[in-house]
Amino acid sequence: MDVKAAVAFEAGKPLEIATVQLEGPREGEVLVEIMATGICHTDEFTRSGDDPEGLFPAILGHEGAGIVRDVGPGVKSVQPGDHVIPLYTPECRECEYCLNPKTNLCQAIRTTQGKGLMPDGTSRFSLDGKMLHHYMGTSTFANFTVLPEIAVAKVRKDAPFEKICYVGCGVTTGVGAVINTAKAEPGCNAVVFGLGGIGLNVIQGLRLVGANMIVGVDLNNDRKQWGERFGMTHFVNPKEIDGDVVSHLVELTGGGADYSFECIGNVNTMRQALECCHKGWGESIIIGVAGAGKEISTRPFQLVTGRSWRGTAFGGARGRTDVPKIVDWYMNGKIEIDPMITHVMPVEQINEAFELMHHGESIRSVVTF
Amino acid sequence: MDVKAAVAFEAGKPLEIATVQLEGPREGEVLVEIMATGICHTDEFTRSGDDPEGLFPAILGHEGAGIVRDVGPGVKSVQPGDHVIPLYTPECRECEYCLNPKTNLCQAIRTTQGKGLMPDGTSRFSLDGKMLHHYMGTSTFANFTVLPEIAVAKVRKDAPFEKICYVGCGVTTGVGAVINTAKAEPGCNAVVFGLGGIGLNVIQGLRLVGANMIVGVDLNNDRKQWGERFGMTHFVNPKEIDGDVVSHLVELTGGGADYSFECIGNVNTMRQALECCHKGWGESIIIGVAGAGKEISTRPFQLVTGRSWRGTAFGGARGRTDVPKIVDWYMNGKIEIDPMITHVMPVEQINEAFELMHHGESIRSVVTF
Repeated sequence: MDVKAAVAFEAGKPLEIATVQLEGPREGEVLVEIMATGICHTDEFTRSGDDPEGLFPAILGHEGAGIVRDVGPGVKSVQPGDHVIPLYTPECRECEYCLNPKTNLCQAIRTTQGKGLMPDGTSRFSLDGKMLHHYMGTSTFANFTVLPEIAVAKVRKDAPFEKICYVGCGVTTGVGAVINTAKAEPGCNAVVFGLGGIGLNVIQGLRLVGANMIVGVDLNNDRKQWGERFGMTHFVNPKEIDGDVVSHLVELTGGGADYSFECIGNVNTMRQALECCHKGWGESIIIGVAGAGKEISTRPFQLVTGRSWRGTAFGGARGRTDVPKIVDWYMNGKIEIDPMITHVMPVEQINEAFELMHHGESIRSVVTF
Repeated sequence: MDVKAAVAFEAGKPLEIATVQLEGPREGEVLVEIMATGICHTDEFTRSGDDPEGLFPAILGHEGAGIVRDVGPGVKSVQPGDHVIPLYTPECRECEYCLNPKTNLCQAIRTTQGKGLMPDGTSRFSLDGKMLHHYMGTSTFANFTVLPEIAVAKVRKDAPFEKICYVGCGVTTGVGAVINTAKAEPGCNAVVFGLGGIGLNVIQGLRLVGANMIVGVDLNNDRKQWGERFGMTHFVNPKEIDGDVVSHLVELTGGGADYSFECIGNVNTMRQALECCHKGWGESIIIGVAGAGKEISTRPFQLVTGRSWRGTAFGGARGRTDVPKIVDWYMNGKIEIDPMITHVMPVEQINEAFELMHHGESIRSVVTF
């Protein structure tokens, strides 16, 4: 079938709207009509060419929501008409990782996903007979896409696509880091580095679990009101304080953060995030993705005196199990999404959405088809 | 009173046996006759002058066992005749740290302890009217010492001093790192870097909790039989394998260690210990103390894909609560100490004990008075 897609033909070039061909779902696969998709920094990391593992030409996009339109043989957990969110971290419920309660990093289709292919080693997308790569196993920058059954989360039908697509990455990553990875408890003090689309979701995750002090750190003062909108109690602009930001944060939190979250991807702020943690028990969680080859450092004394350095991917969430719950939380008013979707536009304007992100003018832009 | 002590008069010089003066216990303090004390790398770190916070002249030693001979006003938890193990990490049961179940780092007397003084800011030791510093709040290289009540663990009277003094540091640090910090579970795979006095205790801690694979890593092949003596199942000498030790360990453990322990104090092996951990859930625990100014590094990807980097001091043990239990475990045969005490000698030969440690000829030397 012909589908409308925003294609990344070459690293560093703008996306191009094109009509491409999509094969139907094979065994264990589903065809999903994408109704809305967010634009995330990870898409930009690949589009720009900064991702050393980026493959081209490809159909990017990993933060979508849509409707199942067809299923291949053997598919049992969803059927046509079901509303779903594509999962770049699948949940097979059978691999060594899915069966270990300490991780969410299902490895069932990792190798082929990393090669931009479906689990059988082929692509469903092509243009004039030439193969186009899938991306993160999702490729949501197309009005139809094919996904493995284990990579879709079935969600309630009354939830608006333009909002819940954000649960496919940013909301789950931020809220999940608090709930699943840190397991933050009521009354804790937390510091969040970077008040973008992920950081704000960390903040509302902390509000949800009843954190005491929620300190946001950002170089952009415009983000203060954004943080406060979702529960931030204190704002720190490192440019505007005297002396060392770590000492400042330790003092502000009365000895250090119980939990800190790095949502930028900068190895220097990762170190600050660790070192502003409380002696004895503070845990720092890395969420941001650092540039290729970058390394984090600290004195081992920081760890020996009780701080822990950890990381999280997709908020430690098991997609098919947890994403429907987070959609429920949104529909029940436990968390907010609407104010974070600052821009909605047709897919034809997708390059403008990337521009808005570059300039820090959007929290999240969503495109529709 | 006059007491016999091995005094560190100057950094880098051998200890000297001298008769020094000891004041009796003040409020909240106890006088302990030290019956035996181990010699640990931490003593050497200070004696050598490598410790930037080392103070001289001082009475070193932190791994002792003895008998309470007198108590100051207000002391309630011990009385003369009680057998005790001095605690360089005290347990006041009242401070913010003691009341937080996530840490054992009681801070009640930390400031004065770091200055080589008793909690009231003075020293009980002197020589010819000149003050001698306490060390780690314990100063066990003397046949009598004064300690805060919160820094002694009362233990059973049938346990031999020459063995249980080792519980004052090495045994608790190693076994505790497994039980309290890692909370390692039956069936886990673990890698231990450095098979000295700490590493061997990590190994027997892993055996105690029912670990599956216990891999020891050391450059000294003589340590293979030592490791096996306490439960090590596999030995790796990095000098004798082809290629990268991390890849080797990941392959050997079928995907990486569930837990790794660094017992050397080398920042390069600390990185290897982290990176040989299993994706998704592996935890690396730093036990070794690195040199001043040294830093650890890794790519943040290691953490984002599910590994945790942590540390431990005194095995995460709360001394007054946990040390008596570990002595019981020894007396009941759950753990071994006897074979690790390779040398026992009178305090007059204490410098020989340091030499044996230097040359890797001892696991633990103990001196008696």
